[in-house]
Amino acid sequence: MIAMRGMGYYSENTIGAKVVIDTAGVLVVDALSRMNLFQSNASFEIADFGAADGGTSLDLMRCLIESVRAANVARPITITYTDLPQNDFSALFRRLHFHDDHVTPLGHEPNVYTFASGTTFYRQIFPENTLSLGFSATAMHWLSKRPSLIADHVHATGASSEEREHFRRQAATDWETILLTRARELVSGGVLVLANFCIDDQGHYLGATGNGVNMFDWFTNHWRKLMSDGEITESEYHNATFQQYYRTVNEFTAPFDDENSSVRRAGLVLKHVSTRVTKCPYAAQFREHGDAHVFARAFIPTLRSWSESTFFNALDLTRNSTERQTIIDRFYQAIENDVIVAPKDYSMDYVHCFLSIVKQ
Amino acid sequence: MIAMRGMGYYSENTIGAKVVIDTAGVLVVDALSRMNLFQSNASFEIADFGAADGGTSLDLMRCLIESVRAANVARPITITYTDLPQNDFSALFRRLHFHDDHVTPLGHEPNVYTFASGTTFYRQIFPENTLSLGFSATAMHWLSKRPSLIADHVHATGASSEEREHFRRQAATDWETILLTRARELVSGGVLVLANFCIDDQGHYLGATGNGVNMFDWFTNHWRKLMSDGEITESEYHNATFQQYYRTVNEFTAPFDDENSSVRRAGLVLKHVSTRVTKCPYAAQFREHGDAHVFARAFIPTLRSWSESTFFNALDLTRNSTERQTIIDRFYQAIENDVIVAPKDYSMDYVHCFLSIVKQ
Repeated sequence: MIAMRGMGYYSENTIGAKVVIDTAGVLVVDALSRMNLFQSNASFEIADFGAADGGTSLDLMRCLIESVRAANVARPITITYTDLPQNDFSALFRRLHFHDDHVTPLGHEPNVYTFASGTTFYRQIFPENTLSLGFSATAMHWLSKRPSLIADHVHATGASSEEREHFRRQAATDWETILLTRARELVSGGVLVLANFCIDDQGHYLGATGNGVNMFDWFTNHWRKLMSDGEITESEYHNATFQQYYRTVNEFTAPFDDENSSVRRAGLVLKHVSTRVTKCPYAAQFREHGDAHVFARAFIPTLRSWSESTFFNALDLTRNSTERQTIIDRFYQAIENDVIVAPKDYSMDYVHCFLSIVKQ
Repeated sequence: MIAMRGMGYYSENTIGAKVVIDTAGVLVVDALSRMNLFQSNASFEIADFGAADGGTSLDLMRCLIESVRAANVARPITITYTDLPQNDFSALFRRLHFHDDHVTPLGHEPNVYTFASGTTFYRQIFPENTLSLGFSATAMHWLSKRPSLIADHVHATGASSEEREHFRRQAATDWETILLTRARELVSGGVLVLANFCIDDQGHYLGATGNGVNMFDWFTNHWRKLMSDGEITESEYHNATFQQYYRTVNEFTAPFDDENSSVRRAGLVLKHVSTRVTKCPYAAQFREHGDAHVFARAFIPTLRSWSESTFFNALDLTRNSTERQTIIDRFYQAIENDVIVAPKDYSMDYVHCFLSIVKQ
């Protein structure tokens, strides 16, 4: 089961994710400027797919509301946040509806209505021809299922070529499913703006951008050490396989290349593609303050927020949850110790592929 | 803060609530039969206001889908479940999306799309003129705020006449707010079907139907005993005041009586009003099996599911949460003991006012 940590933990520990979304905002505003917002007074319907607690996209949503309002002040706006059932939706709704300080909560902006959907973006979430603008950031590398375990690594980026092929195929099918499903949901003229993890043309990807330690190798080494120390079994070692795949730019664009592809026939046209490395904000802060302990205390939670459930769920169910938690805490403690010893070797640069897609 | 217990606890311990909703189903189907479902192929939008985990209205929703489909197979149907941010939305979404046995989950029925809203029904939740059918069961006795504490009772039904007047006024304002807000949301021809707790023409209300112990007096006596035993302070005794009011039938119908009322001018017309006592299913089971312990073990959780947060939150914040929980457990233990000693004296009959309202 894929699970981000709840209680607002995700947003508070993913400053980098917010930087990425702000970059995507430029694409969103550009897309809006080419839409005829007067064509209808029906609701302008926005979706954030894989939104977690909604914190990282708040500023983007405010910017979107402003753009729609500037063009057509009367149109109601709906914003629907989607994520898996186990997501912390209470954290999302508190963020949307509780006042803090002097800012109107997003969910209380005039003529703005916010909702949640608790299902996967591999299913159709909205009725046909209703969605005006779909957005998703840093979510679609999560596959609909894990095509196989990876014997001696935790991530497809470190898999054998045969193992990687299983993941590549699953990712191709999943990408087509995502696009065809969104094509049904979008109105004619509707837009999909995505910021997805990728492998860029230099072969760089999350935590592997040519400087310092490769993050997934680092995870693998510590997980393997738990096995060699006898803390976890061989099968638990194998079980830790992220249900993820980082697509290349070519893999993202392939469905748009052939005008007879199912995606093109569904009306989708690729308007923009680019990649961008977002430097790890925690490593940048460390270069300012130089305190390895402060760096580690900020950096480890961002790693944990998205990786912990994969390791936790790799552990055998015969262990009680306290025992499992103890092993996981030891694992991240070892990782934290590495950072304290050699802080300059560690960082988690984001590598994103930005896509803007229109439904004709 | 109003809170029902999460993790599906609410639905599993409120069999009575489901019986009431099934009764309301007759009104809903009757209302549908008078709607022109062919008038549009836009989504048929349904809302369940104050839905908790959605369990008690599942059968009603299936029945509704069937009725809409029978008239117009092509219309997409959306169902939006609303509740406060602290509601357990993950329990709701698991119920809507996880398969068990051989039944298709409601959220996976063809051309049905389910959503949640995490805000109060005292605010406008949907854009204007979009809601086809609004439904709510056993939720609107919760007031938007507690107008005052009640000095020597836990509930408005046992308040002094001066205290009760504060609650009556708040309830009148709240009822008007609910109606005017729904009037904005509903499409022309749209329907609102409500099953609200009430005081009926015989003066009966929840847990006070003329047989056995008056439930709120019983709660009050045990809460007062905690004070006289020195377990809670006088201020904690006073703090336990349910943020509830049971309206009379006249109070429900008053806004519809005068054709110049704001509610009538908003287009709302009352089509049906009736009251009904739903016999306590746990007491009925006890009359079959005769085992007081079995009765108590089934009955106490249904009481706790909606009453516990009021007592818990009455306790002073200087106590840590373990201490608070110990007091609450002792309170319900004393209540359980009463049931075991004299099971025939206890039951919780529901008393509902059913309303069917059309927006012209």
